[in-house]
Amino acid sequence: MAVDELLRSSRLSWFGTEGADSDVVISSRVRLARNLVSLPFPGRANLAQLAQIQETLDPVLAGLGAELGQPFDRIALDELTALQREVLIEKRLISEKFAEVQPHRLAYISANTRISILVNEDDHLRIQSMSPGLSLTQAFEMASRVDDYIEAHLDLAFDETMGYLTAYPTNLGTGLRASVILHLPGLVYTRNIENIVNTSPQLGLAVHPLEGIGEGAHFYKISNQLTLGYSEAEMIENLQTAAGEIAAHERRARKALSYFGKDGIEDGIWRAFGILSYARSLTEQELFALVSRVRYGIDRGIIKEVTPDCYAEIIVAARDGYLKYAAENENLSTGEISAIRASRVRAILQKYRTQG
Amino acid sequence: MAVDELLRSSRLSWFGTEGADSDVVISSRVRLARNLVSLPFPGRANLAQLAQIQETLDPVLAGLGAELGQPFDRIALDELTALQREVLIEKRLISEKFAEVQPHRLAYISANTRISILVNEDDHLRIQSMSPGLSLTQAFEMASRVDDYIEAHLDLAFDETMGYLTAYPTNLGTGLRASVILHLPGLVYTRNIENIVNTSPQLGLAVHPLEGIGEGAHFYKISNQLTLGYSEAEMIENLQTAAGEIAAHERRARKALSYFGKDGIEDGIWRAFGILSYARSLTEQELFALVSRVRYGIDRGIIKEVTPDCYAEIIVAARDGYLKYAAENENLSTGEISAIRASRVRAILQKYRTQG
Repeated sequence: MAVDELLRSSRLSWFGTEGADSDVVISSRVRLARNLVSLPFPGRANLAQLAQIQETLDPVLAGLGAELGQPFDRIALDELTALQREVLIEKRLISEKFAEVQPHRLAYISANTRISILVNEDDHLRIQSMSPGLSLTQAFEMASRVDDYIEAHLDLAFDETMGYLTAYPTNLGTGLRASVILHLPGLVYTRNIENIVNTSPQLGLAVHPLEGIGEGAHFYKISNQLTLGYSEAEMIENLQTAAGEIAAHERRARKALSYFGKDGIEDGIWRAFGILSYARSLTEQELFALVSRVRYGIDRGIIKEVTPDCYAEIIVAARDGYLKYAAENENLSTGEISAIRASRVRAILQKYRTQG
Repeated sequence: MAVDELLRSSRLSWFGTEGADSDVVISSRVRLARNLVSLPFPGRANLAQLAQIQETLDPVLAGLGAELGQPFDRIALDELTALQREVLIEKRLISEKFAEVQPHRLAYISANTRISILVNEDDHLRIQSMSPGLSLTQAFEMASRVDDYIEAHLDLAFDETMGYLTAYPTNLGTGLRASVILHLPGLVYTRNIENIVNTSPQLGLAVHPLEGIGEGAHFYKISNQLTLGYSEAEMIENLQTAAGEIAAHERRARKALSYFGKDGIEDGIWRAFGILSYARSLTEQELFALVSRVRYGIDRGIIKEVTPDCYAEIIVAARDGYLKYAAENENLSTGEISAIRASRVRAILQKYRTQG
């Protein structure tokens, strides 16, 4: 059962330590909103129309695997348990909105988890493409390949003046949303992050702590705010540049911290590593805060005991939904999950331990 | 220079993990107050008299090494630096009161650090004997051997009705004070310690957190309150029994904790071990709190990574005075000492690491 494999996998190939600027940039994402002609948006469609949308898209999407040279999992949302949906949300492969059970919703997810296509969310079709590090162009190219393939088989709603028609006017035009996840402990520790968050709207950017993960993780999501009036290439370029500049800020902050306030932060990094290595109980919130410090310590060359890959696996495989699913028990108490999480984290750190 | 060796040594043979009931009882101590006839107590003596007291006692104490078969360090207090005095206080080999610089004070300390004799503190002579675990009889026998040897050479102030005459009436009679240091995390965690502290005066006992070390260390000192009206043997017997009973209480508390509230305490034990293993900065107060948890974890069979001996060495060799003396720099800042302490603790844990 392929879905089970997808849910149990402890790695996401796009959430790793490879890619450009991977000392700061975790991953890049591009999402395209597309709709079929002459059918209402899902929010306004009746049951028969929702079925028709699915039936139109399904056979085309079924051919995507052959086109792109990798298998896709076809997942009917209403066949998933609540826990399975939770795991897919944790892995950022489906949206929270998509996970609300509505009829005729489909997800097509590529074997390498870099492409996720949602049918009958807000739009008929949402094409998501994720890639590691600062790689918006690469993510956009992959999304475009999917888009081109679909447009070759189906008529999509497109207006010469307006561009792609979408359920929400904010997506009108290119139908493109791009975002980047950054790890910004340096800007947090030097208290520069507020400044960046506050000034970003003037640059047409939104900078927010990544949802679903505590602020202690120091993950921030940067996305473009405007979709109208720019070409796709301009939008990608703008965001890529902005993310690169924030990454440069982050590096300067880290460098400053390596001179000033060094001792306190190094102590905190090592304590985090000590607690992760030995604790018998960890909440998800605490986990993220500790893991962020450890990752920062690895990036700064302070911690050499484990390889950076441990980070990506912990972020995926030590989460509530994942652990419940792996334990095949959705009724675990908070205390039980915290104990299982601590045990899992110790095992992961052991697995990624360096020699010597 | 023998004093230097004594100060630098990271072990105290009486503060270890051997001895009876050593899972709970750290050490036992007996102190005898003695005075020469026809000379005033030091607090009332003039300079010439203080010199006379020292000159009378010094040649007799010089023969003690041969008598007891181990060398003694003869330490003239006014030749010590403030830092050296601090280290001797930390090691409980001299009292804080004795460390106040007054002329003609001498300390004779045996090579195994189990006997410490102070000249011209409150009394002409204070004989202290320390031994590991619950071993008051053994400590008393050793103190008595010293006492017998001195009485064989000198006339001591003794009244047929009152017993030994002492500077403070509370020591009158036998001149004996006995005390035991216990490690009581179980009674602290189960909140039974207050009860024991509060009811102890009714049993003629004083139970207090050990001075000079934070309460987080869970060290308690139990001593007899009454010296008059009991024979030496009765006093020793009473305290030995009381300490044994408190140790039994402590074991029951630990057992209860191994069933109830197990998870939280185990997690705390492991976190303490993780922080001690990796922290880059530790205050003395935090150190004691963490070390107490680790020792408790070792005693409970939870931590098997290090042998119990690490505990005794950390308690001696990670203290402010000791570290400054070892670094030969009494002007280290608090931050510097905290960093050196953390480094020292890591080295000690490494040294006592078990195989496998």
